[in-house]
Formats: sequence, C-alpha cells, structure tokens
Amino acid sequence: MDSGSSEPQPLVALVDALRRLPGVGVRTARRMAYHLLQHDRAAAENLGVALTHAVSRLRHCERCNGFTEVPVCATCAHPSRDASLLCIVETPADQNSIEATHGYQGLYYVLMGRLAPLEGMGPDEIDFGRVLSRASDGVVQEVILATNFTAEGETTAHYLSEALRSRGLKVTRLARGVPAGSEIEYVDAGTVAWALMERRPT
Amino acid sequence: MDSGSSEPQPLVALVDALRRLPGVGVRTARRMAYHLLQHDRAAAENLGVALTHAVSRLRHCERCNGFTEVPVCATCAHPSRDASLLCIVETPADQNSIEATHGYQGLYYVLMGRLAPLEGMGPDEIDFGRVLSRASDGVVQEVILATNFTAEGETTAHYLSEALRSRGLKVTRLARGVPAGSEIEYVDAGTVAWALMERRPT
Repeated sequence: MDSGSSEPQPLVALVDALRRLPGVGVRTARRMAYHLLQHDRAAAENLGVALTHAVSRLRHCERCNGFTEVPVCATCAHPSRDASLLCIVETPADQNSIEATHGYQGLYYVLMGRLAPLEGMGPDEIDFGRVLSRASDGVVQEVILATNFTAEGETTAHYLSEALRSRGLKVTRLARGVPAGSEIEYVDAGTVAWALMERRPT
Repeated sequence: MDSGSSEPQPLVALVDALRRLPGVGVRTARRMAYHLLQHDRAAAENLGVALTHAVSRLRHCERCNGFTEVPVCATCAHPSRDASLLCIVETPADQNSIEATHGYQGLYYVLMGRLAPLEGMGPDEIDFGRVLSRASDGVVQEVILATNFTAEGETTAHYLSEALRSRGLKVTRLARGVPAGSEIEYVDAGTVAWALMERRPT
C-alpha cells in the first residue's frame, strides 16, 4: 500500500519482537508496544536493558543446569546444603516452588524441559546423560523426582527412575498429594511440602 | 533467606521488567523469562534491541500525535490524502482498523487515550487544546469522531463534538453499526467500513 499508512519501522520491529514472547499474539503485542511507548517509556528502557543483560550474563550452572551468572550457582555452592539429596525438577519455577516450602535442604538438577516426543523433546534434547552423571557423583544417595504430575512429567520420571535405579541409586518421587493433572508451579506451598515429606520409593 | 536459593540478579531484573508489560503478572513474567533464556535467546536479543530503538527513535507526530520517526508522519505528509477530513481515534490500533478498510483517504488525529476521569484522564491529559487547534487549521472541513463506542469513548466524542461545533466545524460520528459496548480495534473491517460510510452529524 502507498497511502502513507505504513507504520514507522522501529514500531513494526518492536511489535514483531514482542510477538515472540510465549502466549503473545499480534494484538497483544501492539497493545504492549503502545502502552510502553505512550505510558511507560521507562519500563521499555528497563526491559531492553534487562533483556540484554540477561542474555549476555546468564548461563547454565555446571552442576544443576539452572540459570546463573557464575560457573556454579549459589544454591549448588552453598556449604549447608545436603549434597546427598538431589531433587530433579523440570524448570526453575518448579525449583522456586520447592524452595518456598522451606522444607528441603538438598540440591537440585533442573532439566529445563521434560520428555515430549511429539514436540521433539527426547532424551538427547533433555541431555539425560548429564543428569545421570550428575547423580552418579558418589555423593548423591537419593534422587527425588519432582517432575510434574502430567503425562510428560510422569513419563520423564519413569524413564529417569529406571536409569537411576540401574545405577544403584535410591530414587523417590514426590508423594501424589499434588492433584493429578496439575503442575507443581501452581500448587500451594503446603501441599508441596506435604508431598515432599511423603515421598516414596519408585 | 540464606540457603543459597536466591536467583541471579539479571534474571530477577528481567522478570521485574517483564511484569511491567500490561496484563503480565509475576508467573507469566517468569514463564516468559525462562522461555526466552532457554529456548529463544535470539528473540530476547531482538526484543532488547527493538525496545531500545523504539524508545530512542519514536516520537509523536507534530500533526496527528501518532508514533513516528520524523517530525511529521508518513500519513500526514502524504500528498494524496484529503486534508479536509480529520478522523479522531483513541489509539494507533484504531487508526490501523480504519486504514484496513481502504475506504478512508482523509487524515487522522490520535488522542492516545480517552476521557476517563476515574483514571485521572481529563481534558488536560488528553490535551484537547491541541486537538482543537489541529482541527481549526482552516483546511479541515469535517471532523469524524471515531472514538470507541464505550462509555468513555462516547463521553470523549460528546465533549469533542461540543467544542468542535462551537468553532463552526462539521462534526460527524461513525455510524452505530459498530456493536454497542465493543471496541473498534476488534471489529471486522467490513463493519467498520459500513460505519464509516454511514457516519452521521452529531
């Protein structure tokens, strides 16, 4: 079209970039862009800087695979943590939920995903080899599987359980106090604490 | 807390910055941050750059108040536009909806808001003085009020209609073909085109 109706390029680029956020379509992206430009330019600047910093500074922890600024994250490096316990979670959000119970002092491994063959997430994409070698460091005595109680999470737990037990490790699963079909991130801390306490061998 | 569970600062800053997007709470912000860092770092970088560029390069058009990189935007500067027609909209999204009908060749004025006293948006915040002086340039013959058909949009249209007519301008309103209570941005182009065609004096 040439009726002078084309939008300025920086606005088009911003809307396109916002659309790549999960769950954001073109209308929402436009609303976000207009809101930031009209009402909260400081927020737009902050977000721009935060994104640049996060991408350049955050890497994966060598031990737990979580996000960190240093080679080994604060949790893994903390001296009072019980290194004989390793809790495997799907995401950092799940780790946060377990930390919020204040009932767990062991360490974590963050899968950053779960088995989902239909989405192309297989054992190689999750890098199960790295999980197994982390759990086989000779210090870990028990692995707590805290993947979600969804079909994919259960499949992931089952797969990991087989592999870990064949290496002689004790493997437990969060008690099924977490309602079936739900995701750990969205469960209240009390329920998560109870499920952690009632964990049972697989 | 000092159990080594604190998150790295760039991640905290990113989640905080994402929360300032409209409609984004802390859980959604976390999901966005994890998604970008784990699965789409290129998108994060793009968005960071796009935000910085948009904030530094986009300003308000001197004539229509829309976003532009230059003093007068491409629409206002276009030679084949009919400068005797001025369509007043609430947002750039509304302008896009009207442009999408390909049935309007006049110019625009973008309020970047609407009267909403409860939210602290009064005539001064909207800068009605600027709207009136834009419409009183001696070239504009007819002002088409295309604010939303919501309570605030109707109030804004009523207020503008009084002020513009007292200056001897012809003032029309989009025909009430747009369903009452809905927002123009979400109406299909055909309905908007019809409402534009059937516009009536106020």
